[in-house]
Amino acid sequence: MTEQQRYSLRPGGETIFTVPGSSVKFGPGALREVGEDARALDLKRVGLFTDKHVAETTCFVILIGALKDAGVEAVVYDGVRVEPTDQSFQDAAAFASEEDISGFISLGGGSVIDTAKVANLLSCYPDDLMTYVNAPIGQAKAVPGHLKPHIACPTTSGTGSETTGVAVFDLVASQVKTGISSHFMRPALAVVDPLTTDTLPSGVIAATGFDVLTHALESFTARPYTSRDFPAPGTRPPYQGANPFSDLGALAAIRLGGQHLVRAVTDPDAQGSRHHLMFAATLAGQAFGNAGVHIPHAMSYSVAGLNHTNVSAGYEREMPQVPHGVSVVINAPSAFRYIADDNPDRLLEAARALGADVSDATAAEGGELLGARLAEMMKMTGLPNGLTGLKYSDADIPALVEGAMAQQRLLAQSPRTITAANLAEIYKGAMHYW
Amino acid sequence: MTEQQRYSLRPGGETIFTVPGSSVKFGPGALREVGEDARALDLKRVGLFTDKHVAETTCFVILIGALKDAGVEAVVYDGVRVEPTDQSFQDAAAFASEEDISGFISLGGGSVIDTAKVANLLSCYPDDLMTYVNAPIGQAKAVPGHLKPHIACPTTSGTGSETTGVAVFDLVASQVKTGISSHFMRPALAVVDPLTTDTLPSGVIAATGFDVLTHALESFTARPYTSRDFPAPGTRPPYQGANPFSDLGALAAIRLGGQHLVRAVTDPDAQGSRHHLMFAATLAGQAFGNAGVHIPHAMSYSVAGLNHTNVSAGYEREMPQVPHGVSVVINAPSAFRYIADDNPDRLLEAARALGADVSDATAAEGGELLGARLAEMMKMTGLPNGLTGLKYSDADIPALVEGAMAQQRLLAQSPRTITAANLAEIYKGAMHYW
Repeated sequence: MTEQQRYSLRPGGETIFTVPGSSVKFGPGALREVGEDARALDLKRVGLFTDKHVAETTCFVILIGALKDAGVEAVVYDGVRVEPTDQSFQDAAAFASEEDISGFISLGGGSVIDTAKVANLLSCYPDDLMTYVNAPIGQAKAVPGHLKPHIACPTTSGTGSETTGVAVFDLVASQVKTGISSHFMRPALAVVDPLTTDTLPSGVIAATGFDVLTHALESFTARPYTSRDFPAPGTRPPYQGANPFSDLGALAAIRLGGQHLVRAVTDPDAQGSRHHLMFAATLAGQAFGNAGVHIPHAMSYSVAGLNHTNVSAGYEREMPQVPHGVSVVINAPSAFRYIADDNPDRLLEAARALGADVSDATAAEGGELLGARLAEMMKMTGLPNGLTGLKYSDADIPALVEGAMAQQRLLAQSPRTITAANLAEIYKGAMHYW
Repeated sequence: MTEQQRYSLRPGGETIFTVPGSSVKFGPGALREVGEDARALDLKRVGLFTDKHVAETTCFVILIGALKDAGVEAVVYDGVRVEPTDQSFQDAAAFASEEDISGFISLGGGSVIDTAKVANLLSCYPDDLMTYVNAPIGQAKAVPGHLKPHIACPTTSGTGSETTGVAVFDLVASQVKTGISSHFMRPALAVVDPLTTDTLPSGVIAATGFDVLTHALESFTARPYTSRDFPAPGTRPPYQGANPFSDLGALAAIRLGGQHLVRAVTDPDAQGSRHHLMFAATLAGQAFGNAGVHIPHAMSYSVAGLNHTNVSAGYEREMPQVPHGVSVVINAPSAFRYIADDNPDRLLEAARALGADVSDATAAEGGELLGARLAEMMKMTGLPNGLTGLKYSDADIPALVEGAMAQQRLLAQSPRTITAANLAEIYKGAMHYW
């Protein structure tokens, strides 16, 4: 019996399981139980954060109904910006501060969940946004304490934001993506209902799916936690590097991504594959929230920040942008080739898990096989052919490098020290893949 | 590079990682940080629960020092009984009720951690113990709400109690083991410092190690969560059956147990193997706290409850007893052979993970291979040769069956319906293994 058959659903049968401690509820229909979940957290009046597109979906109707049935009052904020900015975060925080709410519910992609996290933070502990933003861009002030309970309901299989304490945004004046990290921002409960992905355009499935894959691959290949110095009391970083716990979820997510991503994008009937990707997103989110991501994510911020003209399939209704998952995976094959020598066994294991044929391979080929398999999957799912597919050329490399060098917090998780010259080399290797 | 090399420790290097959400802190030296952890939970005065043997160890001194350094006052209760009873639970609860404490710290094996959970419960929501005990033995009243924060510090690699909401005890008048389950009893933080196992007698390593293995094997082979009916609002059982999340931790724990248990028991210098078992215990605890255990655990309670003369290696200082891990694994090979036909692929996968040679095996042989590999490991680690090794004979089977039949809550997780006649057959198959 395969794993899928073992868990095949049947009419009237249970469809949901919870992940204890990490407080994830996963399964088709889970969204219908959010009212009960809110009540269990003693929430009587909540701020429901979403964006204008999600607010038009069946998911939103289901969620509103679930809250009503449970007697939980909801005030709706649908002004979340996809790829949020400092301004859009502050607008949401102003809303939260003005409303008398005891908790937060977010329904949407990573943008929505991240916005609710920051609205929660700034309404509980008012301060200038930049005070909390990661150094060196912000002042990296520690979040002072517990926030209000936040139930995060992702509607894409992308960011894994529902299980992390991270919120990312575009700092418009500096044209750079940055963020805030604190374990206090981790949602009290993640409600992951894969039915929410059933109507997503395939371009969104692709972009978010590759975000999942790179979370998992970067967590799995991040520098080991044991390579850091023992930290002074209270200073252990939230991104600890790869460890035996993050490896479990990361490797499982890589396997699921390798098996299901291409089918989820190319076959509109492959509902099961989309659901598997949703579970992979949760596992990968837990893994990278713990281990951290590194080079591909550090390189993505300037790729997204410098391009204001790209229109991707599935994102036609948004402002021109490079979807986060695309901006990340676009450099990943080149980055994994670059770190091939640092831990070849691990890269070979990742390539195998992703579905590469490694039967005759030596460990030294791990980085190349992993890069090639990733590029193959990108091609099969209609992604741009490297940075040239996003209209970047060699002339853009200095600006791209400058943006990536600002992400020292992420580059610190790389298994190898990365200089500006190294980044230039990796961007050069990411110009086209086929 | 092997996994072990990747995580090899070096002088001055980081030795600790945390598991976010599920709030586990794992690593050598973690006990030294419990004072900070208590402060992070706003605890100023705690009840420190332990037993008289642990109170004489270096661990205890380290923990007391850590609390003192952090300015956390501790009142010590060292009256925990190994294999607790209804009376010993109530004694501990009386202590907690009388002291003005804002939280609990437990240092010890499952007995200690379980006692702290119940003392927390009964001091926060006073009621008769049996009111909260699982049906049909108790009234199974739901725990009304949040308890005080509890930091659980296991000193054996056994129960995984640090990540579960379960507490088990002997109900003396009825000669039966039973327990209380509630997600509110889950510790706020598990601090798993494998250095605590360095001085354990090898008999304790064996008994607790097999407890870990059976947790993992039973979680992995439990009935799938999808086999239940969809529950009415708020009635989803805490033991949900096997699911994709519990499978990850369970399978990883089976692999670690297969690789390290025999060495940890038989080689006094195999500190690394003991540490791996400690991590396996944490993973297995998370898995079974979510999926549930089934036949071997249900059968163990009467094995322990009816025998008051056994003295096991490593437990000479305790009252005569069958250590929990021994009482569980003693029936496990027979039980896995019995369920062999229900999910042969899964049993074969478990056998492979445990280190059985499955190269020429068919799925139909999974149960037999798993049982044989378990029995082989029991023999190599000096465990009793089945129930006869604990002085049971066929004449005891009716009484053993009667005790096991009382554990319907656990038997419900079995992949196959289990009658009294089935149990008799399994006990018969557990009389001797070699």
